[in-house]
Amino acid sequence: MTQQAAIDLDVGLTVLSADPADPAVEAGATHLEGDPSDLEALRQLAERCDVVSFEHELVPNEALVSLAEEYDAVRPSPAAKLLAQDKWYSRQALEQAGFPLPAFAHAASAEEACAFAERHGWPVVLKAPTGGYDGRGVWFADNPDAVAVAFGEAGGPLLCEENVKIDSELAAITARRPSGEVRTYPIVETLQVDGICHEVALPASVDADLAAQAVELVERVASQFEVEGLVCIELFNAGGELLVNELALRPHNSGHVTMDACETSQFENFLRAILDLPLGDTRALHPAALMVNVLGPADGSDPRERLGQALAVEGARVHLYGKEPRPGRKLGHVNAVGDDADSVAAAARRAANTLSP
Amino acid sequence: MTQQAAIDLDVGLTVLSADPADPAVEAGATHLEGDPSDLEALRQLAERCDVVSFEHELVPNEALVSLAEEYDAVRPSPAAKLLAQDKWYSRQALEQAGFPLPAFAHAASAEEACAFAERHGWPVVLKAPTGGYDGRGVWFADNPDAVAVAFGEAGGPLLCEENVKIDSELAAITARRPSGEVRTYPIVETLQVDGICHEVALPASVDADLAAQAVELVERVASQFEVEGLVCIELFNAGGELLVNELALRPHNSGHVTMDACETSQFENFLRAILDLPLGDTRALHPAALMVNVLGPADGSDPRERLGQALAVEGARVHLYGKEPRPGRKLGHVNAVGDDADSVAAAARRAANTLSP
Repeated sequence: MTQQAAIDLDVGLTVLSADPADPAVEAGATHLEGDPSDLEALRQLAERCDVVSFEHELVPNEALVSLAEEYDAVRPSPAAKLLAQDKWYSRQALEQAGFPLPAFAHAASAEEACAFAERHGWPVVLKAPTGGYDGRGVWFADNPDAVAVAFGEAGGPLLCEENVKIDSELAAITARRPSGEVRTYPIVETLQVDGICHEVALPASVDADLAAQAVELVERVASQFEVEGLVCIELFNAGGELLVNELALRPHNSGHVTMDACETSQFENFLRAILDLPLGDTRALHPAALMVNVLGPADGSDPRERLGQALAVEGARVHLYGKEPRPGRKLGHVNAVGDDADSVAAAARRAANTLSP
Repeated sequence: MTQQAAIDLDVGLTVLSADPADPAVEAGATHLEGDPSDLEALRQLAERCDVVSFEHELVPNEALVSLAEEYDAVRPSPAAKLLAQDKWYSRQALEQAGFPLPAFAHAASAEEACAFAERHGWPVVLKAPTGGYDGRGVWFADNPDAVAVAFGEAGGPLLCEENVKIDSELAAITARRPSGEVRTYPIVETLQVDGICHEVALPASVDADLAAQAVELVERVASQFEVEGLVCIELFNAGGELLVNELALRPHNSGHVTMDACETSQFENFLRAILDLPLGDTRALHPAALMVNVLGPADGSDPRERLGQALAVEGARVHLYGKEPRPGRKLGHVNAVGDDADSVAAAARRAANTLSP
């Protein structure tokens, strides 16, 4: 999707990945074969590019630090990227900066985690400090036995968090240029199932005050940590109080709806931000918009076989990623936009369910 | 731009062209090197593809006929494509089918053209039957000397047309699938300067009756000639009477505004139509939209050097084509959409003028 945006701006993308069938490459980006965690491969990428950025969290932060010492334009900076790469660091840095967080603690052992749960209530949320994604690396433990299982699976220290009772989950996305310009998208509401994002509504159905708080919060993160690029903050709405859940310093699934819902997509603003070009208007174009993810069906079938039926759904905009199907894998999404949230939701869900029954 | 649409639908494009730096290839389409007017090269293309279509008029119709005899899915058909390739054939076929046209005649010599002008009034419009594009191959002759010059330049017979007094120029675009489904875009108004399209407004500022006539007309062409793909008809509005000017059987400059103005772009509907997939909604998303072309500046400078300033124009959506600059060459366009035609026009023009002063 970043490649689609790059076409309009006539920006040439080069993608460092092991897989020559990487979706961005299939869509037209130049391929540089290599392991993104290998500093030598990163250097080769930097030699070819004016700006280096990352659409995932997999590059070891030490490699980013080394790269940024040698090349100016690594954006966002390794220090900012670390907020999305290391949950333990992130929690501490955000707490120190005064951001509202769920209660948390570092637990070296199951015993420490149980002690935390006794103080903050069961179930306790346990998170691997690094490498988690789409619900992987997260455990909800109801009792000491479940805590022991989590520590057994993780094989190392875990981050404990209180299990916040939430009314809804929100996400706030902002783009920030090196020169300091900031543009924030309308706050969205996300529906997660088993830690995987299923739907995103734009705008979130929260009152204007709470939305304004979320905007203020993401813009404060962006400027405090001097983010160059995009920052997406997943937020818990707990009885009208906002708590920071996770951060991503790249285009994020919560922002896929902006492709059709907003004046400028998150992908174009990602490019503009890292290239230090003026940011695009983030305003919503329609009163209502919904994104529904297309996950690989349990039966292993390929959603592309049902493209024709999905395109017959009036008002649905299908975006496929060119990925081979695997149950539960994010293979695409459907957006719908319009005046009325109900009809928008009906169209997006019908098309997504057609692709992935 | 078709490649951008192809990404969303996970459709693989292969482009037959002599130039490995063809814009579609730069944007990610697979390149097949060859001459599109060479039947052997066309066969190689057809062997690799499920459907063969053309974004220009340059493939000789005889080659299309041969190709269509060997391969089923050449869309639109050579017979339909000929409407855009041979103006003399087109005029006759449209007249026979009862479509409203300016007075016209075939002129083998300057004398015959002058006789036509005496009957229908000076100036007379002279057109090369084939190969014209963006004002090339068209002469407005005020007197017999100018007619002689045109025949001298053309070196062959010309099509004569009366010089219609027009109130405005409109364009009607429809997509039609092999199965017969048809979807028509809102009628647009085009502003031409020296035969080159400069601006396109969606919708056209004409009354609902005239717009409905234009829709009826383009849909009748699409079904009468069994168009598989897109058909764009450029229309003269002469005092509330519509006359057919030119046809294109492919995505057309008049439809670039649909990328941002309509539920489904002409490029996506082009793909859906030739692939016989359900067509997308062609409805306008906003009360007003304007496209302004970015032509290569007279000083030979590159609009890309001014991308930053253009992106700073609020509400302008920049689409560049990755082409090397040449004075007068179409290098990109700017769209703007919104509630108010004046502010939309101001944004699109300001950004386009910034790119190409």
